[in-house]
This record gives sequence, C-alpha cells and structure tokens, in this order.
Amino acid sequence: MTVSDQSRLQQVLSDIRPLDAEIMEEAARRLDQLTKPPGSLGRLEEIAKQLAGIRGEVMPELTRKAVVVMAGDHGVCEEGVSAFPAEVTPQMVLNFLNGGAAVNVLSRQAGADVVCVDIGVNAELSHPLLRSRKIRMGTANMAIGPAMTRTEAEAAVMVGVELAQELAGEGYRLLATGEMGIGNTTASSALLAVLGATDPAAAAGRGTGIDDERLRHKQAVIRRAIETNRPDASDPMDALAKVGGLEIAGLVGLILGAAQSRIPVVIDGFISSAAALVAAKLAPLSVSYMIASHLSQEQGHERLLTEIGLTPMLRMDMRLGEGTGAVLAFPMIEAAVRIMKEMATFADAGISGASEREGV
Amino acid sequence: MTVSDQSRLQQVLSDIRPLDAEIMEEAARRLDQLTKPPGSLGRLEEIAKQLAGIRGEVMPELTRKAVVVMAGDHGVCEEGVSAFPAEVTPQMVLNFLNGGAAVNVLSRQAGADVVCVDIGVNAELSHPLLRSRKIRMGTANMAIGPAMTRTEAEAAVMVGVELAQELAGEGYRLLATGEMGIGNTTASSALLAVLGATDPAAAAGRGTGIDDERLRHKQAVIRRAIETNRPDASDPMDALAKVGGLEIAGLVGLILGAAQSRIPVVIDGFISSAAALVAAKLAPLSVSYMIASHLSQEQGHERLLTEIGLTPMLRMDMRLGEGTGAVLAFPMIEAAVRIMKEMATFADAGISGASEREGV
Repeated sequence: MTVSDQSRLQQVLSDIRPLDAEIMEEAARRLDQLTKPPGSLGRLEEIAKQLAGIRGEVMPELTRKAVVVMAGDHGVCEEGVSAFPAEVTPQMVLNFLNGGAAVNVLSRQAGADVVCVDIGVNAELSHPLLRSRKIRMGTANMAIGPAMTRTEAEAAVMVGVELAQELAGEGYRLLATGEMGIGNTTASSALLAVLGATDPAAAAGRGTGIDDERLRHKQAVIRRAIETNRPDASDPMDALAKVGGLEIAGLVGLILGAAQSRIPVVIDGFISSAAALVAAKLAPLSVSYMIASHLSQEQGHERLLTEIGLTPMLRMDMRLGEGTGAVLAFPMIEAAVRIMKEMATFADAGISGASEREGV
Repeated sequence: MTVSDQSRLQQVLSDIRPLDAEIMEEAARRLDQLTKPPGSLGRLEEIAKQLAGIRGEVMPELTRKAVVVMAGDHGVCEEGVSAFPAEVTPQMVLNFLNGGAAVNVLSRQAGADVVCVDIGVNAELSHPLLRSRKIRMGTANMAIGPAMTRTEAEAAVMVGVELAQELAGEGYRLLATGEMGIGNTTASSALLAVLGATDPAAAAGRGTGIDDERLRHKQAVIRRAIETNRPDASDPMDALAKVGGLEIAGLVGLILGAAQSRIPVVIDGFISSAAALVAAKLAPLSVSYMIASHLSQEQGHERLLTEIGLTPMLRMDMRLGEGTGAVLAFPMIEAAVRIMKEMATFADAGISGASEREGV
C-alpha cells in the first residue's frame, strides 16, 4: 500500500523547523569581532547569520552547489500569450543539457551544477543528463479549465521534494531555483493575482518581450482563467493546480524539500518567486530558508517578493529566468561564508574599536 | 626641467577618448544572436557592450584584476566627526597588507589583487607590499582652512594616474576603487555638497556609525568647512584641494588614468563615488569607463551616483568602503564577458526565434 502524495507532503510541511537562534547569536557575536564597523557588511552579515541558523554551525561549508531547472509546458500558450512558440521549451531543455544556455555559462563561472528536470515538457525528451520526472505532457489550457488536477499538482510538488532530498544526499549544500516553460509568466501572474490578491493588470508583465496589445490580451486571458476556475485563495494547492504549472509545482517542492533538509535555497526571478509564494503559504517557516537574488524587470516581481517578505540583492534588469539571477547571486552567498572564516578580528589585528566602545 | 603635474594632467584629460561605437554595435548584434530573448540579460548585456567599446574588441579578456586601496588621513578628525579614532587608518593599512580585511577576503574570492597605496597616512608605514606614494602626513583640518594646496591635490591625482598606467603595463585589465581614511565620509560629503549642489544635511550620513547628535555635528563641520574655504563649484580641483582628501584625489587620478589606458574601472561606495564625481567633472568622457557596483547605505550615495549618471547593480546595505562593494561586483563583469564568449546562438542550438520575427 503506497502512502499518498498528499500525506507525504503533510509530513514534509511538519518537518520544517525554525532556524537555530542560538547559533545565529553566536554568528552575530563573531561578526561583531571582525575588523569592520558592526553591521557594515549589511546583507553579507545577514546571510552569514541565516546560513549559520540553517546549517546549525557558525561557519558552514557550502561544498556542492546546484541550480535546479524544472521544465514544463503550458496549455495556455494556445491563447497566444507569449512572444515565443511553445516548441522552444524542449529546444531550450536540450540547450541546457548541451551547456549552451545562459544558466550554464553562469553556473560554470559559479562552480555550480545545472540539474535539468523534465517535469512536464510537451515532447519526448531523452538525454543522459536529463532527470525525467514527467507528470504529464504540459498543462491544460487554464483559460478553459484547470491547468491540472490537484493530484497531479501534489505529485509535481513531491517530485521537487524528492529531488531536494536526493541532492542533499549527494552532498549539495546550496540550491537555486530555475525554470523553463514558454507561457510560464502567465501562470505565475495568475498565482500572484490569486494568492497575492493582485489585479491581473498589475500582476502580468511582458514576459520574454510582448507588445502592448499582446500584454492586454495576456491580462484578459488571466482574468478569464481565474473566472473559469475560481481558485480558492486560501488553498494554495488549489490555486497551483488550477492556474499554476508543472515546473512551478516542482519548484514549490524543491523549496519545501530544501527547507526540510536544512539547505538554503536561492530564489530566482518572477516564476521562481511565484513558486516561493506558494511554498510560503503552505509552510510559512520555509521562508527563512530562502534567499532572494535579483529583482527582475518583469512587472509584478517586486509585489511577489514583498508578499513573501524577501528583499533582492541584485538589480540587473534581467528577465530571462532559467535560474540565471539566482546563480549570479551565488558569489554573494560564498562571500558571506568566507567573511566569517577568513576575516581578522580586532584583537588579531590589534585595531582600535569605535570610540563609543572605548573610554573604559 | 620637469613638466608640472598640472600640464601632465591636462594631457591625461585630453587623451581620454569616447568608446568605440562600431565595436559596441558588433557586440550588440552578437548578443541578439544568443539563445535568450533580446535584452533579457539586462545589465550584463550593457556591460558586455561597454567592455567591448572600452577595449575595442567584441570579446575582451579581463586577465588580471585589482582593487586599488588608497589610504590617507584627515585633519578634520580633530573635530570629532567619526566613530573611530584616526589611528585606525594605519592599523587598517597593515590589516590590508596582512590579508585580514574584508576587501582581502572578497578579492581572494574574486581572483583579484589588492594594491595598497599610502598616499597620505599620518604615520610612518613600511611593508614590502605597500606602494608608498605619500604626498603629506594627512590633510589639514578643513574646518579651519584648506585640506591641502592645489599643488598637493594635483600631485595626489597624478599618483593615481601613474598607478593606473603602471597597472595597465603590468597586464591589469579590470580595476576597482577602494579607500581607507578615518574621516573620509566627511570630505566626500563636502565634495558632494559643493560639486553636486547638495545641502550638507542631505550630503552627510552616518559613516562608520555615528549617532544623531554626532551626525548633526558632522553636518555643521561640513557647513563650516565650506564657509571657511569657499570652494569654487565650477573648479573641481579647487573643491578637491579645499574640502577633499588625499586618497580621494588618488582615486580621481586612478579613474582618469584607467580611462586614458582604456581600462574599465569599477566604482565602490560613497567615497569612491565622490572621487568619480570629481573625475567626471574634470573629464566627462571618463564616465563611460566607469561601472557602478553597489548602492551604499551611506546617505548621499544615491545622490552622488545620480549626479554622475551611474546606476548601481548591488543593494547589499553595505557601508564599509575599502573597495568591498566594487570587488563584490567583479563576478558580474566576468559574467558579462563569459556570456559573450560561451553562450550558444539560436542557429547553433537550432532554437526558434520570437514569433514576431517569424512568419516570413
């Protein structure tokens, strides 16, 4: 007798614990002994404390790093919401596997692996490096009915959870979210509209680069999808199934699985953040395992991050997805680790402290 | 007979040329063939084009990278404007030379060298790694008279110019500005006030971390320095001499020398940006050789960057100086180079273009 995905997921959610506050205080004390004004390294110090709290040690090792690129297709592409044809999804998956995409280039630079997952591409794909976990051949067109069933959405989330568990077992200590799926800004905007109580006109942007006319059409399609499916804003899994996507569901699971395995997870742009919002609604404690990377040019991204309670580090005007912004932030995370380990203390270096702390 | 620093500097200013527009267009064409929606890598694409225009080739090699940390003391510290005592300047210089400061840690991570220059520390310093180019033992107290003479300011600028020329000769192809000098946010705020027509109350911030009372005092000291010295807002060298600093002058020269040698220079935080503003006023074309790195927490930094016309990439809430924010941005510059070199083109990867470009 197999345990249902639903009850396994419930177990994951209840496994997610708060960060270790004691270790975080110890990390904060060490940071204040380093040769710099207290707090002057800003976000690097915040990340150093967060990593300590996640891993339960003051100076954790990141060792292996990976960006997980989940790929899936979207039935809503039938409505003409994207600048690119749907066939680009499988074509780009092959590009990832051959190492030619932007995320591959940036990952090589960062010393990170690209883990490519077919969770719902509408094509038969086979490659030695591809992790094939297809739930179905793309979602259905949400403009005329639910994108997928609740059972499918739960199964897709569990694909992500299990992948995070596997990667943790393989020694990965830093993960990033990435995705590919023509049409997936439409699904992400719909999730923001439902779960973030945002009007589709504010939630939907230009994606890969559509013009004004097609943008208005995209917003109308999202409105129609919400009217047709009536997703329950208080039930994130219902929204995910009705107006989400398979790769988005996979990323929800990846984030939850990372939090369960106490591994920090760097959130990429708009689509990844939509997944992060669903994860945050399912398990609010998962937010403390997330690190926001960049602010995308996609309209609605800032709103999404605010809703989750995350602040991005990079303003690169990027809007590519794939995990490119998240991988670009990997050096920031590594810098936080190295600052803790390698900087001299005031005592080591024989340096005078701030005058407020003197005069004893 | 030696040529005066003034006339040598005039030569440097007239040597600075615009970027190569033809090569930049060639770079733009290549970027649009890569497997991504046009422009979707945002700032990375802008930097790739800028680097091409600076170096005169579509795929330049960055090879050696360095952050130049100019150190100098400030007579205005007598007024009690900083949270730290002035003796911290030479102490931190030794920390840089011993590799224990934040900028050392971040530079090791970035594969960059730290070039440490004593241009005006108020202490005798000697170390095999130190470049000793002292102009004088710190500036005079600008609250009661000019920080230095115009001749001293010009000589300090030429120290930076010559260093950039030397580093170019040694094969460095990417430079960053860094500095150390207790009291130097006061001098930088004064420069912003004069050259950026900004009230001292908006130009001056908390530096290494002063409280409200000391901040009001610092603002009053800046106001007094400007009233006492009456720097000429239309003469950047006059402002630099009267209310600037030796390390700031050195960085002005470094930036101008980098532009003269067609080397990109990454601008760190508040103090570095004050130097960049002076460089921009002396040679407006030098701005196209600058790359802004981060937005500092120091009040006035955004105003400074706007005045120069630069947009920062990182929002790390840092306020340490030393070049830390600039070095943290090195991976972004490297990413831009690698994107140009390593990404597959649409043709290579057999990927369909945007549907607007189809239908032929």
